[in-house]
Amino acid sequence: MQSDHSSSDISRRAIISTIALLPALSGTLLSTLAQAQTSEVPLASWNDGPAKQAILDFVRATTDQASAKFVPPEDRIATFDQDGTLWVEHPIYSQVVYCLDRVPAVVETDPKLKDVEPFKTVLSGNREAIAKLSLHDLEKILFATLTGMSVDDFEAEAKKWLTSAKDERWKRPYTELIYQPMLEVMQYLRSNGFKTYIVTGGGQDFVRAYSEQVYGVPPEQVVGTAAGTKYGYRKDGRPFLTKEPKLLLNDNDAGKPEGIHLMIGRRPHAAFGNSTGDREMLEYTGAGDGARLMMLVLHDDAKREYAYGPAQGLPDTKVGTFTQELLDEAKKSGWSVISMKNDWKRIFKFEQNT
Amino acid sequence: MQSDHSSSDISRRAIISTIALLPALSGTLLSTLAQAQTSEVPLASWNDGPAKQAILDFVRATTDQASAKFVPPEDRIATFDQDGTLWVEHPIYSQVVYCLDRVPAVVETDPKLKDVEPFKTVLSGNREAIAKLSLHDLEKILFATLTGMSVDDFEAEAKKWLTSAKDERWKRPYTELIYQPMLEVMQYLRSNGFKTYIVTGGGQDFVRAYSEQVYGVPPEQVVGTAAGTKYGYRKDGRPFLTKEPKLLLNDNDAGKPEGIHLMIGRRPHAAFGNSTGDREMLEYTGAGDGARLMMLVLHDDAKREYAYGPAQGLPDTKVGTFTQELLDEAKKSGWSVISMKNDWKRIFKFEQNT
Repeated sequence: MQSDHSSSDISRRAIISTIALLPALSGTLLSTLAQAQTSEVPLASWNDGPAKQAILDFVRATTDQASAKFVPPEDRIATFDQDGTLWVEHPIYSQVVYCLDRVPAVVETDPKLKDVEPFKTVLSGNREAIAKLSLHDLEKILFATLTGMSVDDFEAEAKKWLTSAKDERWKRPYTELIYQPMLEVMQYLRSNGFKTYIVTGGGQDFVRAYSEQVYGVPPEQVVGTAAGTKYGYRKDGRPFLTKEPKLLLNDNDAGKPEGIHLMIGRRPHAAFGNSTGDREMLEYTGAGDGARLMMLVLHDDAKREYAYGPAQGLPDTKVGTFTQELLDEAKKSGWSVISMKNDWKRIFKFEQNT
Repeated sequence: MQSDHSSSDISRRAIISTIALLPALSGTLLSTLAQAQTSEVPLASWNDGPAKQAILDFVRATTDQASAKFVPPEDRIATFDQDGTLWVEHPIYSQVVYCLDRVPAVVETDPKLKDVEPFKTVLSGNREAIAKLSLHDLEKILFATLTGMSVDDFEAEAKKWLTSAKDERWKRPYTELIYQPMLEVMQYLRSNGFKTYIVTGGGQDFVRAYSEQVYGVPPEQVVGTAAGTKYGYRKDGRPFLTKEPKLLLNDNDAGKPEGIHLMIGRRPHAAFGNSTGDREMLEYTGAGDGARLMMLVLHDDAKREYAYGPAQGLPDTKVGTFTQELLDEAKKSGWSVISMKNDWKRIFKFEQNT
């Protein structure tokens, strides 16, 4: 079922534009990274500096009852973008790889698609041709591979893929490409009474398939791009839900605060992102009263991970666009920028052993 | 702002049909009922009997590690319908009263509506005419009174109404008309590690305005009929969300399991309802493996509350329809029926003092 084409050179621009409409997810169920124990020292993988200090100051202000900025435990909500903020998004979102990998199975259940574009091109394995697929073609692939099955079947398929698929550069399951320093922030916030949410442009059901094991975030705390489902009955009378090709929430850009209101119903006190797609979430978080923490992960470590985006003087890859305009807004609004290169002692947990 | 027309005799059928499309909520912010302390004796307001026993047995089976039906704490999800299950819904949903009460304020901001139906009729205070409003008219009223404002303004308005509006029969705020035995079930489940959710046909934002104070259920654990919001900026650049007249989730009937999947992403282990609108939620809950608890509240206490529905040999009021068919399905599927008359020692907390 696993096709062997590499998708790393697929047109990022087209894919990412599609993702703005639909999901962009990924993951693998490696339990090594799961819900890591709260370390003795908080933020152990962080270097001392303004970013780490901002986190420590925020937690101190919001949890000290004597502080004017004290936040009651029930109001402690923190939201995290996923792609590029919690794990690697470059050069392609893992969920897009998943969708491309699923095409052969979809064609198997509906053989006439074999000769229909864009499925024909994906099946060809011709990387250049795949890279040229239009936005509309990619939408077709996403809908065909992410809807039409029961939610249980989808979850089982996604979990199966996550345990077998591997990233091209590190040759590891995608769920090992989690940023250890960000995991530590999540754990540190949770140990201080915060509820941590993932608020992702990726597909909600996809991320929920591994969020608890990988991030310690239960399914009900994953807000993502979501399609509707349809209730029905199997022949034996047993009810089930089918994933429908009907977009309910595009959880990107303005869709992030809208999704937060829909699913959480409270304004977060802390929000973490890495691109223009997170801008509105950070603005919305910052517009509340009292202590607020807004942080942006800057991909400036070409050696240990990647350096990309116009703010890096690099071509705009459309993955996790960190524009000069975003940097200006961050400065003006008091958002913290996390330099992967300078603020993080290590990026992945597996670096420990290398 | 508070119009003085009574809405108790408004056509229930039309209203309830509308509610199937849109919200049906209610509440008042009386803290007396808020998050009542866990009583020493669980389920103190319950008489001994099969209903109480079913709850005790379920909790014992799911929380005892030696039990084959043990459920890990993170999977302990219980969902509760609101209208007619947690509080009084007869003779009219409180949220509909809210919407009718809001009409004068809506007309004040848009005076030309004064002479436009159905607003003209609502303003007239003519109860008979109001009772004859069509489904389409009621939809117009719901959209006009529940959308078009910022989410913050809506919350403030709803909270204001909840502290001032009173039920006609008991002359008390709607949020005092909470069923004490059901509050005790919620508390008992929570003290045993369950996350309690409200899954209501009522408007999500309306119920969130009082759910924490009244039920101890935080906003993020309220799933309801939900409309979209739109992100924008005020003149000073501060972002805000506007409630849009765009239905995202009709949280009734099949919409309940669909809403549960969207917002929670797990199948509940326990579900509580009182009408055909809860049928699919109970079916979906019951279709999972292991210990499951499905319960229906039967309104059979004309003296202390109300007795209604065809199963009571009474005319079908379309409020909380408990049909013979539903009763048959309950028996066949092993769902428990709670008799308000026989299973509950008292119905409201205020009875304590009378």
